[in-house]
Amino acid sequence: MALIVQKYGGTSVGSIERIRNVAKRVARFHREGHQLVVVLSAMSGETNRLLGLARELSANPSPRELDVIAATGEQVTIGLLAIALQEMGIKARSYTGAQVRILTDGAHTKARILEIDEKRMRKDLVNGTIAIVAGFQGVDKDGNITTLGRGGSDTSGVALAAALKADECQIYTDVDGVYTTDPRIVPEARRLDAITFEEMLELASQGSKVLQIRSVEFAGKYLVKLRVLSSFDDPESTAKGTLITYEENDSMEQAIISGIAFNRDEAKISVMGVPDRPGIAYALLGPIAAANIDVDMIVQNIGASGHTDFSFTVNRNEFQKAMDVLSRGKGTTFDAREIIGDSHIAKVSAVGIGMRSHVGLASKMFKALADEGINIQMISTSEIKIAVVIDEKYLELAVRVLHKAFELDKAPG
Amino acid sequence: MALIVQKYGGTSVGSIERIRNVAKRVARFHREGHQLVVVLSAMSGETNRLLGLARELSANPSPRELDVIAATGEQVTIGLLAIALQEMGIKARSYTGAQVRILTDGAHTKARILEIDEKRMRKDLVNGTIAIVAGFQGVDKDGNITTLGRGGSDTSGVALAAALKADECQIYTDVDGVYTTDPRIVPEARRLDAITFEEMLELASQGSKVLQIRSVEFAGKYLVKLRVLSSFDDPESTAKGTLITYEENDSMEQAIISGIAFNRDEAKISVMGVPDRPGIAYALLGPIAAANIDVDMIVQNIGASGHTDFSFTVNRNEFQKAMDVLSRGKGTTFDAREIIGDSHIAKVSAVGIGMRSHVGLASKMFKALADEGINIQMISTSEIKIAVVIDEKYLELAVRVLHKAFELDKAPG
Repeated sequence: MALIVQKYGGTSVGSIERIRNVAKRVARFHREGHQLVVVLSAMSGETNRLLGLARELSANPSPRELDVIAATGEQVTIGLLAIALQEMGIKARSYTGAQVRILTDGAHTKARILEIDEKRMRKDLVNGTIAIVAGFQGVDKDGNITTLGRGGSDTSGVALAAALKADECQIYTDVDGVYTTDPRIVPEARRLDAITFEEMLELASQGSKVLQIRSVEFAGKYLVKLRVLSSFDDPESTAKGTLITYEENDSMEQAIISGIAFNRDEAKISVMGVPDRPGIAYALLGPIAAANIDVDMIVQNIGASGHTDFSFTVNRNEFQKAMDVLSRGKGTTFDAREIIGDSHIAKVSAVGIGMRSHVGLASKMFKALADEGINIQMISTSEIKIAVVIDEKYLELAVRVLHKAFELDKAPG
Repeated sequence: MALIVQKYGGTSVGSIERIRNVAKRVARFHREGHQLVVVLSAMSGETNRLLGLARELSANPSPRELDVIAATGEQVTIGLLAIALQEMGIKARSYTGAQVRILTDGAHTKARILEIDEKRMRKDLVNGTIAIVAGFQGVDKDGNITTLGRGGSDTSGVALAAALKADECQIYTDVDGVYTTDPRIVPEARRLDAITFEEMLELASQGSKVLQIRSVEFAGKYLVKLRVLSSFDDPESTAKGTLITYEENDSMEQAIISGIAFNRDEAKISVMGVPDRPGIAYALLGPIAAANIDVDMIVQNIGASGHTDFSFTVNRNEFQKAMDVLSRGKGTTFDAREIIGDSHIAKVSAVGIGMRSHVGLASKMFKALADEGINIQMISTSEIKIAVVIDEKYLELAVRVLHKAFELDKAPG
């Protein structure tokens, strides 16, 4: 018998029929003798509908009131699932964020969880009642309703699992696990039985949008065993999804590279011929940060004759804003020969914990791309990732080539 | 400067455009220097939509969970109105029932208000912020969300006005006041500037469905000045609606009869030839009450030869159930010659506080009906009401005849 937290996303509770399906799955785990806390999102589309109403009234609505409105989406689904379970003869009880008392800071629409009171839920679990908790929401110390921001239900699930010291936090979604890469691009992509948090973070941040990044960080911090599963499988299915662990262990696949991630939401900006002197990186990127623009990759080449070239990537939505900021700075806060922007780029990354102990992976990656005539514009590496920026038009080709080069279509031996 | 509680019903907040209209009206009162607490219902149709979702899952859903689900309707409208007001540059803050702390008993779906903490609202009012409160809902001592039942938002408004000792509680609805009778039946029906609580209770319970009865009782108990107004008037309109007062005073109209009420939702049951002995009324009606059937009028005629006839009315929906209960009792718990049911009846009442001090009104009423050949099947009187049961087909005719007989089309002299 284990204590399991299950989290179901918006598509998993998107209709009465699907909620009934979730109830069947929860009932199976209950029948098997597990203690269960179930965390739900709003029905898919509902949060957007609610926020849309608010935006009809104001272009810049009060974040406090947006939270009051948006929090109703999950309040409906928790009540409905409780009723569906009770209809099957199973004891269940719903909790809003305030009722659990998921205490957050007061940062409306993007609050952070500070503390969870697990007493009421614990009482339910002991007497065989399933606790159903509204994800995405909490309450601040003054009793104001807060929300955790988009995808926050994953974080709610992980935080509840941490507070309850659950044996496992199962995240049910519309995919049946984490893949070596997007199967829509590489049909041979393979589901991974397990990956580490660090790999998951790299994969998630690169566009494998299975889990909200913050929830994975949270799980890593509190050592919560996280499992990604499909809610569209038969409720009686015993598929195991992908386990996300906080440590390497013998039972894990020993692949060197776990997956190929990619991202076509970025744009590249190069500032050419800037004086190669201390403080130049700050002179360039300080105003970008001040304008609240997130920078992803940053590359600085060794310069010649006292000058250097400096490149970085930003989200494509903020590309023009970043270009404007730099144009204003050129000749005033910094000198530069030229500022070149390119929004037709893509980032492709090979991710794997095995990199730590293997050499030659970068050159293998570069050779595979070169063999296909794909030019590399930027390179950036971390302990478990090699990322390259290439022309956007080669994205799919690059992903396929790398997936094959690292033999990700084959199960590790 | 006054402290005013305004309550807006579902049709008044049924769309973004209408919510904007409510905001304009609230803004006008704010501009005039009043302190305001605004109580809202859910958007019209929303509560039914939500409860419909629950009923898809269960024929008999848990009342606790129904309340969790239904309470979201008002939570959306309060957030939206706060945003609409803020967009006009007015300070506003929304409160769920739990946030105010509207403490109720634990009777889910039909809870009663026990206590209201007005501290947070009071703080808002003092600093010029408009407090916007979700109607229809509260919270029990264990933190469970409760609802007050259909029309409960009126009760919320009145209870808040009582707790805050407000100068007036304004109920905005889709009619512009209380009329001498239904204008759809009598085009000459006239809006009353003022009526007493007792008259309003009789009019409301008879089918003039302007206000929820419980809210009127509540207002009477706590001496809250209640005013019914239309939310469909221009927001700048200074129409005064109908004031409902708890005492007669000189400024009130001195009409003898205030209005003609009617009800076609009842059915009549007559038990003929029952032994005229003590306890017979209980023998007949005890099982009816035990079956949870509400009885309205009860009439017992003087009997002959030790027998009597006994008639009463019930809601038409419960007519068959009541007939079944009586049929089972006949010959076992009581003796009777015959049980006769008739669901094609209507009740018409003349209501007026002036009855207390005027005689001859009943005979005036009976004569007016007799002149049109309308037979009276049952008569029941109270201090401020004379009610008759007639054949349903004469309902409209009877209402018109009585409206004219009591000269309700003319303003009181």
